[in-house]
Amino acid sequence: MSRAVSMGPLGEAPAAAGPEVLCIFGTGDLGRSLGLRLLQSGYRVAYGSRRADSCGPVPPGAEVMGHAEAASAASLIFLCVHREHYGFLSSLAPILQGKVLVDLSNNLKRNMYPEANAVYLQSLVPGAAVVKALNTLSAWALQNGVLAGKQVYLCGNSEKAKQEVSAMATRLGVTVLDRGSLSAASELEDFPLRLFPEWKLPLITAALISAFFYVFLIIRDVVYARVETGQDVSYRIFISLGNKVLPIVALVMLSLCYLPGAVAGFIQLYRGTKYKRFPHWLDRWMLSRKQIGLLALAFAFLHAIYTLLIPIRYNVRHGAVRDAVEAAENNRTVPAFDDTEAWGSDAFLMLGILGFSLFCLLGLTSLPSVGGTLSWREFNFIQSKFGQLTLLTCTAHGYIYGWNKFLGASTYKWYTPPAYMLCLIVPSVTLALILLLRLPCVNRSLTRIRQGWERHPPMMEIHTKSTTGL
Amino acid sequence: MSRAVSMGPLGEAPAAAGPEVLCIFGTGDLGRSLGLRLLQSGYRVAYGSRRADSCGPVPPGAEVMGHAEAASAASLIFLCVHREHYGFLSSLAPILQGKVLVDLSNNLKRNMYPEANAVYLQSLVPGAAVVKALNTLSAWALQNGVLAGKQVYLCGNSEKAKQEVSAMATRLGVTVLDRGSLSAASELEDFPLRLFPEWKLPLITAALISAFFYVFLIIRDVVYARVETGQDVSYRIFISLGNKVLPIVALVMLSLCYLPGAVAGFIQLYRGTKYKRFPHWLDRWMLSRKQIGLLALAFAFLHAIYTLLIPIRYNVRHGAVRDAVEAAENNRTVPAFDDTEAWGSDAFLMLGILGFSLFCLLGLTSLPSVGGTLSWREFNFIQSKFGQLTLLTCTAHGYIYGWNKFLGASTYKWYTPPAYMLCLIVPSVTLALILLLRLPCVNRSLTRIRQGWERHPPMMEIHTKSTTGL
Amino acid sequence: MSRAVSMGPLGEAPAAAGPEVLCIFGTGDLGRSLGLRLLQSGYRVAYGSRRADSCGPVPPGAEVMGHAEAASAASLIFLCVHREHYGFLSSLAPILQGKVLVDLSNNLKRNMYPEANAVYLQSLVPGAAVVKALNTLSAWALQNGVLAGKQVYLCGNSEKAKQEVSAMATRLGVTVLDRGSLSAASELEDFPLRLFPEWKLPLITAALISAFFYVFLIIRDVVYARVETGQDVSYRIFISLGNKVLPIVALVMLSLCYLPGAVAGFIQLYRGTKYKRFPHWLDRWMLSRKQIGLLALAFAFLHAIYTLLIPIRYNVRHGAVRDAVEAAENNRTVPAFDDTEAWGSDAFLMLGILGFSLFCLLGLTSLPSVGGTLSWREFNFIQSKFGQLTLLTCTAHGYIYGWNKFLGASTYKWYTPPAYMLCLIVPSVTLALILLLRLPCVNRSLTRIRQGWERHPPMMEIHTKSTTGL
Repeated sequence: MSRAVSMGPLGEAPAAAGPEVLCIFGTGDLGRSLGLRLLQSGYRVAYGSRRADSCGPVPPGAEVMGHAEAASAASLIFLCVHREHYGFLSSLAPILQGKVLVDLSNNLKRNMYPEANAVYLQSLVPGAAVVKALNTLSAWALQNGVLAGKQVYLCGNSEKAKQEVSAMATRLGVTVLDRGSLSAASELEDFPLRLFPEWKLPLITAALISAFFYVFLIIRDVVYARVETGQDVSYRIFISLGNKVLPIVALVMLSLCYLPGAVAGFIQLYRGTKYKRFPHWLDRWMLSRKQIGLLALAFAFLHAIYTLLIPIRYNVRHGAVRDAVEAAENNRTVPAFDDTEAWGSDAFLMLGILGFSLFCLLGLTSLPSVGGTLSWREFNFIQSKFGQLTLLTCTAHGYIYGWNKFLGASTYKWYTPPAYMLCLIVPSVTLALILLLRLPCVNRSLTRIRQGWERHPPMMEIHTKSTTGL
Repeated sequence: MSRAVSMGPLGEAPAAAGPEVLCIFGTGDLGRSLGLRLLQSGYRVAYGSRRADSCGPVPPGAEVMGHAEAASAASLIFLCVHREHYGFLSSLAPILQGKVLVDLSNNLKRNMYPEANAVYLQSLVPGAAVVKALNTLSAWALQNGVLAGKQVYLCGNSEKAKQEVSAMATRLGVTVLDRGSLSAASELEDFPLRLFPEWKLPLITAALISAFFYVFLIIRDVVYARVETGQDVSYRIFISLGNKVLPIVALVMLSLCYLPGAVAGFIQLYRGTKYKRFPHWLDRWMLSRKQIGLLALAFAFLHAIYTLLIPIRYNVRHGAVRDAVEAAENNRTVPAFDDTEAWGSDAFLMLGILGFSLFCLLGLTSLPSVGGTLSWREFNFIQSKFGQLTLLTCTAHGYIYGWNKFLGASTYKWYTPPAYMLCLIVPSVTLALILLLRLPCVNRSLTRIRQGWERHPPMMEIHTKSTTGL
Repeated sequence: MSRAVSMGPLGEAPAAAGPEVLCIFGTGDLGRSLGLRLLQSGYRVAYGSRRADSCGPVPPGAEVMGHAEAASAASLIFLCVHREHYGFLSSLAPILQGKVLVDLSNNLKRNMYPEANAVYLQSLVPGAAVVKALNTLSAWALQNGVLAGKQVYLCGNSEKAKQEVSAMATRLGVTVLDRGSLSAASELEDFPLRLFPEWKLPLITAALISAFFYVFLIIRDVVYARVETGQDVSYRIFISLGNKVLPIVALVMLSLCYLPGAVAGFIQLYRGTKYKRFPHWLDRWMLSRKQIGLLALAFAFLHAIYTLLIPIRYNVRHGAVRDAVEAAENNRTVPAFDDTEAWGSDAFLMLGILGFSLFCLLGLTSLPSVGGTLSWREFNFIQSKFGQLTLLTCTAHGYIYGWNKFLGASTYKWYTPPAYMLCLIVPSVTLALILLLRLPCVNRSLTRIRQGWERHPPMMEIHTKSTTGL
C-alpha cells in the first residue's frame, strides 16, 4: 500500500532537531481537538489511525499513519479511542515497550467495567508506562481554547512518565494535580460522570420545604374555601399559591445559609477550642451553604417575577373592574385613602426590593470570576456582613407582611397559623443567634478561640513544648 | 548631554548577577504598562526613548535612556511604538544585530499596509530575530493584572527567539500559543481588529426573522385596522407589536439552537457512521448555537420586561377606566368570573415564567467562569436536557396562548394565520425530531454510531489492520 | 514519648528519591488546606505541631510530628500560625538556620504591630531566609481549587529563596509577582485587609448626588404639598420619591462615566500632545469609571424594579378605583383617548427598556470572565460605542419624560426647576462634548495626537536623535 502522507521528516530522524513529536491514537472529535491544541502549542503531531487514508480531516500540519508507524515516531502516545476498541493495542505491545501511554478515555456510566480503563490498558501493555490524565477535558474545551488555568488530574505508577505528561500539560496551559498511583484511575474516570453531587442535599431540602408548605397552603386556602364556603378557587394553585410558597422557601433557605455558621460559633464557645472537629452533619451543612444560598436566590427571583406579573393576571384584572363597579354602585363615593395602609404597603415593597437587590449582589459575588477578584476580607465582608443584612431585610419584609393580620381571628383558619408566620421561625432564630454572637463579650471570647486560644490546653502539648525547648 | 538617570548597574555589567534586563522602546500607555508588569515579575526594565529626559513618568524602578543605550543593555527588546515610527530602527541595525525584537504593534484598520508590521520590521533590521507576540494584550489588561491564564499568540522565524519570548510570557502569567513562522504575523495582527465575527450570522438571522414578523404584524394589525375599520392604532407599533415580535423571535431562535443537533443525528443515522464530515452549512450552524441561544435569551429578556410594563402603559390604564365605566354604565353588574379563563391565564403565565427562568439558567452556565467549573457531563446535561426542557416549556407557553383562538374565523384576518401560529412551526418540528431521536430503538443505534460503530466499515481499514498485526 | 506517626521515610533519607518534602507549621484551616493542595501537586508534607498526637485531622498522606522534627525534614517551611504564636520559633533558630521560611500570616487590622509580621519573623530567626508569600490566598480558595491562574505576591531579601518559593507556587497553579525585598512585606500584609478601596470615591459621589436630589425632592414634593395645600403625602418618600431619585442618580453617574474621557480628549487637543500627564483628579476619575458605571447600573436596576412594582402599590390601586368611580359619577362617559399621550407614553417606556437593556449588556461585559474573552477592539467597541449609545438612549428617555411639561407654570414650584430637568444637564453636556470630538476635523487631529504626533516636538529630542545617529 503506497502512502500519500509524507513520512520524511518523522521517519528519518524522530525527534532530532525541531519540536517534539507526539502521537495520538484516534481521529475522533477528541483526537482532532487535542491534536489541534498540541500543534498550536508548538508540538508536532502524528496520528495513528485504523485507516490512515480515509480517516477524515485532521488539523493542518498533522500527519496520519498506521498505528505502529505513528507509535514508533513518538515517546508519548495519547489514547483517544473508546475502551471497547483497546483490543488492537496488545498486538502493538512490542512497539509500545517503554513508551508513555496517556489514557484519556471515559465511560458512559459508572461501574460499567470491573476495573478502570487505565488499569485495563496497563494489563494489555505491561511494558508501557500508563498515565491516566486529561480525561476531564472535553473536545469542546480543547477546541475553544478555554483551557487556560483549568485543573486537570493525573495518576500513574511511573513518576518519570507523570512528569513528562505534566510538563506537556503545563505547556497546554492547564494546571496539573497529581492524584497518586494508577489505582486512583477509577476515581479520575468517575470525575466526568458526576452530576452535580454538591447540589443533591440542597435540592432535596428545597423540595421538602416546598412540598410541605405547598400542601399546607392548599389545605388552608383551596380546601378550606371549598369546605367552609363552597367556593372553587382551585385556579389559584398555579400562581397565587406558588407566589406564597416561593418567598417562604427563599427565606427559610436563606436563613439555613447562616444558621450553621452561628451553630458552629456556639459549639466552639461551648467547647472552648477550635481544634475539635465539628459533627459530621454540621460539616456537610457548612459545605452546602453556597448551593443553599443560590437555590434561595432562584426562589427569590421567581417570587419577584410572580409578584411583578400580578396585575396582568385575569383574576386581578377582573377584580379591579369588580371593585370599581361595586364602588360606583354602592354609594358613589371613593373609599377613603388609608394613610397607614399606604405607608405599610410602600415599606413592605421597599424592603422586598432592597432584600432582593442585596441578594442579587450576593449571587453576583458567588460567580467564580467575580469572587476571584475579591480579597479574602472583601469576600468575607460580602458573604457574611452583607448576607446577614440581606437576611435581616428579608425577614423584616416578612414581618411587615403580617404586621396587622396576626391578631385577627380569621387568620387562624382551622386553628392553624398562616404559612408566613411559620416561615418566620427559622430566620428569627438564626438572627437571634447571630445577634448573640455579636454581643461584645461573646464576640471577644469567640475571636480569641478562632485565633487559636484554648480554654483547656491539653497537657501533652506543654510536655512537647518543653521537650522541643531542650 | 549629561544624563540624570543612573546608568551604573546596567552599563557596567549587563545581565551579570541579579535579574535579567529587558528593554522597551516606547513610553506610551502600552510601554509603561508592560514595563510595570515586567518589573512586578522580577525583571529589570530599561526604556529606550526618543527623549530620555522628558518622556513622562515610567514605572518606579525602571530606567530611561536613549534607544541605542537601552538596546545594548538587553537581549530582548519590546517594540511599543506605532509602525509609522519604525523608521529610526534601521539606523540602530548594528546594535540590534542578533537581538530578539518583540513586535507588539497593531494597526487601526485591516489591510492598511501591504505587509504585516512584523514583516516590515524584519526587513528594516534583517540581523535581528523578530517575534510577533503579545499584541492581543491591551495596556489596560497589563495594568490591571487580568492576564492570569490568558492566551497570547506568537510567531517568528527563529525557534530560539520564540522560546525566549515564550519563557518570558509564561513568567508574566499568560499561556502562549505558537502560530508558526513570521508569515503568520498578518493573521496575528488581525486578531485585535476582529469585531465579533462569530456573532455575524446569528445577528443577521435574528434581524431577518424580526423584520419578517414585524412587517407581517404591521400589515395584519395596524394596516388591517385602518383599512377595515378606519381606526388609527399606529401607536401600537412601539410596544404592542414589539411585544409580539420579541417572543416569536426568541422562540424561533431557541429552536434553531436545537434543530441542527437533531439534524446531525439523523444524518449520522442515515449514513451509518460518524466518520464523515457534516455538510459545511451544518458545521457553521452548529458552531453558532451559543450565539443564537444568547440572542434568543436577549429577546426573551426584552419580552419579559415589555410584558411586566404592560399595566403602566397609558392605553392600558385608559382601557381599565373605560372597562370600569362601561361595566358600571351598562347594567351595574360585575361581569361573571370565567373560571376557564382564570386557569388558562395562570397556566400561560406560569409556563412563561418557568421557561424564562430555565432560559436564564442556561444563559448563566454559558458564562465562561460558570461553564468552566462544570464537568463535561454536567455541562452536557444543562445544555442538552435543560435546553430541550426550556424549548418544550416555551413552546407550550406559545400553544396555550392560542388554545381558544385558533378556531374563530376572526383570527384569520385577510386569510392569513396569526403570527403566533406561524412561529410555532419551527419549535414543533424541532421537538418532534428530538422526540424521534429519543425513541429507544433509534437512540440505541445512534449511541452505537457515536461510539465509533460503523454500518459499512471500509475495506481498506481491515487491510491496514491485518498489516499492522504482522 | 513514643510517637505513633511513622517517621521512617522522612527521617532516614530526607528528600532523597521521590517527591520533595515540604514542612508546614500549624494545623489550622489554612495549614490543612495548604497541605492538601501541596499533596495534590505531588509534594510530600510534614506538619509541625505543638501537639503532634492530638492536633486534629490532617489531609491523608501527610505526617504530623514535633516542630523540630518536621523542620529538619524539609528545606522549605510554611508558617500557618498567627503572629501571636511566633515566640516558639526563636528556640528553633538553630534548626531553621539556612532554611526558607514562608510567612503566610495576616493580621486582623492594619497597623496592629510596629513592624510587618515577616520582618518580625526575620528578627526572631536571623539565620533563615524569610519570604512573605501566598498570604492573599484563603483556606477556602486552597481547598476549593479556585487557585488556577490567580496572582499571588511575594517578597524577601534572598533571591534564591524567592525563586524556590516561586517555583513551588507555580506548581500550585498560581502566578507569582515579585514585589522586591522584605521591606515590601507590610504592603503585602495590607492587601488582604483592603476593603474595596477602588469603590470609595464612586460610592461617596453616588451618596452625595442621591442625598442632594432626595432632599430637593422632599422639599419640592412633600413640604410644598404640606405648606401650599395642607396635604400630607409623606408616605411618598419611600417609593415615589425613591423612584425619582434612582433614575436621576443612574443617569448622572452614567454620564460621569463618559465625561472624563471627553475632557481628556479636549486636554490632549489643547496641549497638542499625549505625552503630558493628565491632572491628578482626572487620572483618579478615569480609573474609577468602571465602578461609577456599575453603581449607575445598580441604580438603574432598582429604578426598573420600582417602576415595575408601581401597579401593585396601595395608593396606585386606590387611585385606579377612584378614577373609575369619578369617571362613572361625573358624566358616565369614558375620557377621550389621547393619541399623542399614547405615543409619548409608549416611546418613553421603549427608550427606557432599550437603555436599560444596553446598560445590562455593558454590565455583563464588565464581568472579568466575559470581558476577558473579548479582543481589545471588541471591548473598546462595547465600552465606548455601546456606552455612548446607552447614554444617548437614557438621556432621550429623560427628555421625553418632560417633553410636554417644561412649559407649564405649575412645573416650577417655588421657582425651582423640577429634578428631572436638573439631572439632564450633565448628560447633555457630556453628549455635546462627545459629539464635538466626533466631528471629522476634530477627530482627525485627535487620532493623530493619540498615535504619537506632537504639535510642538521638544527641541531636546531632535538633539538626542542626531546623537544616536552618530
